[in-house]
Amino acid sequence: MKNVWIAGIGMTKFGRRKDSLEDMILEAARIALVDSGYDDFDAVYVGAMHPEGFLGTSNLASVITDYLGLVPAPAMRVESASSTGAALFTAGFHAVASGDCRRVLIIAGEVMTRVPTSKATHILSQVIDGDERRHGATMPALAALSTRRYMVEYGLTSRELALVAVKNHANGARNPYAHFQKEITIEDVMSSKLICDPLRLYDCSPISDGAAAVVLTDTPSAIRVAGFGQATDLISVQMRSDLTHFTSTRIAAERAFKMAGISPADIGTAEIHDAFTSFEIIGSEDVGLFPPGGGRRALIDGITQHDGRLPINASGGLKARGHPVGTSGLAQVVEIVLQLTGKAQYPHPQGVRYGLTQSVGGLATNNLVTIMEAIR
Amino acid sequence: MKNVWIAGIGMTKFGRRKDSLEDMILEAARIALVDSGYDDFDAVYVGAMHPEGFLGTSNLASVITDYLGLVPAPAMRVESASSTGAALFTAGFHAVASGDCRRVLIIAGEVMTRVPTSKATHILSQVIDGDERRHGATMPALAALSTRRYMVEYGLTSRELALVAVKNHANGARNPYAHFQKEITIEDVMSSKLICDPLRLYDCSPISDGAAAVVLTDTPSAIRVAGFGQATDLISVQMRSDLTHFTSTRIAAERAFKMAGISPADIGTAEIHDAFTSFEIIGSEDVGLFPPGGGRRALIDGITQHDGRLPINASGGLKARGHPVGTSGLAQVVEIVLQLTGKAQYPHPQGVRYGLTQSVGGLATNNLVTIMEAIR
Repeated sequence: MKNVWIAGIGMTKFGRRKDSLEDMILEAARIALVDSGYDDFDAVYVGAMHPEGFLGTSNLASVITDYLGLVPAPAMRVESASSTGAALFTAGFHAVASGDCRRVLIIAGEVMTRVPTSKATHILSQVIDGDERRHGATMPALAALSTRRYMVEYGLTSRELALVAVKNHANGARNPYAHFQKEITIEDVMSSKLICDPLRLYDCSPISDGAAAVVLTDTPSAIRVAGFGQATDLISVQMRSDLTHFTSTRIAAERAFKMAGISPADIGTAEIHDAFTSFEIIGSEDVGLFPPGGGRRALIDGITQHDGRLPINASGGLKARGHPVGTSGLAQVVEIVLQLTGKAQYPHPQGVRYGLTQSVGGLATNNLVTIMEAIR
Repeated sequence: MKNVWIAGIGMTKFGRRKDSLEDMILEAARIALVDSGYDDFDAVYVGAMHPEGFLGTSNLASVITDYLGLVPAPAMRVESASSTGAALFTAGFHAVASGDCRRVLIIAGEVMTRVPTSKATHILSQVIDGDERRHGATMPALAALSTRRYMVEYGLTSRELALVAVKNHANGARNPYAHFQKEITIEDVMSSKLICDPLRLYDCSPISDGAAAVVLTDTPSAIRVAGFGQATDLISVQMRSDLTHFTSTRIAAERAFKMAGISPADIGTAEIHDAFTSFEIIGSEDVGLFPPGGGRRALIDGITQHDGRLPINASGGLKARGHPVGTSGLAQVVEIVLQLTGKAQYPHPQGVRYGLTQSVGGLATNNLVTIMEAIR
């Protein structure tokens, strides 16, 4: 398998935006093109979770390739629910690693704020098990089940959980691309609206618009894709043996570390899918950065702060940077590259060799882990 | 780049079906699993053009992987409008050719008949250029423009064009998987309802349900993937320099033949995207089987009949086998494998070494060509 390198990255500011999905994707793509120095590609991979539902947009891969002036480059759309941006990265990796493509452009975007919040919530809830959905489950409801169980098993309190939101908002406040750019307090979290006990509004990532882009190449550059892994899990949450950890993340991480030939101890910074605050803790344990229950301890001890021993979501994460569903998995890759190359405009660890991303599709039915290596 | 082989195939009967998308996909997948002799996979690729619009189904790749009992295999959905099944094949090819996956399962399905025809037509028209759509264009309208121009340039008459439908219905009548299984006459075509001049009802492929599956592997088998190519074109038809030929097919074919190291003269059977009868003629010329205008002559001379020198759509094609949009590109691959291995239940050429498929995404904005080789 050929080595694959990252030649360029691009991202829009996330938030409630007025421009079209196409315009946002083009903005992110053009930044990545300039960053890479390339202007022709062997393939274009476009990711969006549900542009039909959010916008009524179809045939997105062809449209974007045309608008970018990249015709006749082959193009396809990839989708895996809320991990779409990461699955896209996998598809592009295979194209380059196979030797069939020397350079590919990967772009993800989602516009979610154009529909009423109730419709957005409906679209998001369609990714969970149909039977559980008919019995009233939603994404936050299932996440709340998982969170409550974690509290019981590991002694996590609501005030401790609020530290994730406080940390990530503080990080996001220094990230010019973030949806939310203001700091919050534990009291802000504790007094915010209860969404589904024990999750409050500030425990949930926002509905956002945003796009991200990455150029992959077979030519050595400053950042190498060291490894990636992907795994699925049963759609029905009630059929799983463990509510407080996601097998799909664990298997994905094992595969990624095996490919990279390193261990979790080698990771210097991580972007973890904190669609809900508890998912950051669970995800950090599932990828192996901490033992079960250890994510809580690391949070309380400040280890995961941007200046801690192992920063998690130094960018602000999905919680504060925002969560345009199809984009987040690729935005995490962009953030890790910004950190590894020292180009992130927010406080982040310096001189790190390996950075990790973890993305969750659906209620952890399709999760991915990527590991990037800085070559110095 | 590693060689990639086809280890198994599966397909449902096409038509107006009562079972769910998931059930149809599972049926095709299980046939392919049994055919391949494998029951575990390194990845699952699922294709559907618009299950959200036709059915309200989301997170399809995870759902199918779970229902097939293949968790935790990585899974993703691929989409490229009406060439989705072929783009899926490309994504799976890259996964195996890279060496990252040894065995992948590729499945495509679409249920279109559950919504009223007017809604299906609306969904299909969303893939064309937004500006042309707002001015009243639909898929058949743009195809009609192309057909009329071909008639002017190459002297094709409506009665000659009807020969495509007559041939493909005669072929479909002998294919137990076909949507339509009755022969028709030139008079039937000529007296059918005018859809968009010069295209009549019998010049258009039907709205169908159906699924297809293919197992790709790095282990030598009877069928090798000799080559494939993909290319995009401008979304807006009015911006193109040629209405009677599709640049995207031409470039895709050049790439496929280059990879396979053969020429069009080596092809012994072909499945061409005859969503409209004229597209079979145009497609056969674009892939290089005949010179411009030569597709008409070959049709009239019976060369493309199932017992002619170069059979085209011996299966009945999209016209008679049916056209579940996301499935067709992969169904073509299944048909070619059936023909190359002598397992097709309909009359088809014997002892052929190379078979070709050509798939059209949108109004020829994202086209693919694959070439399969029988190893004897």
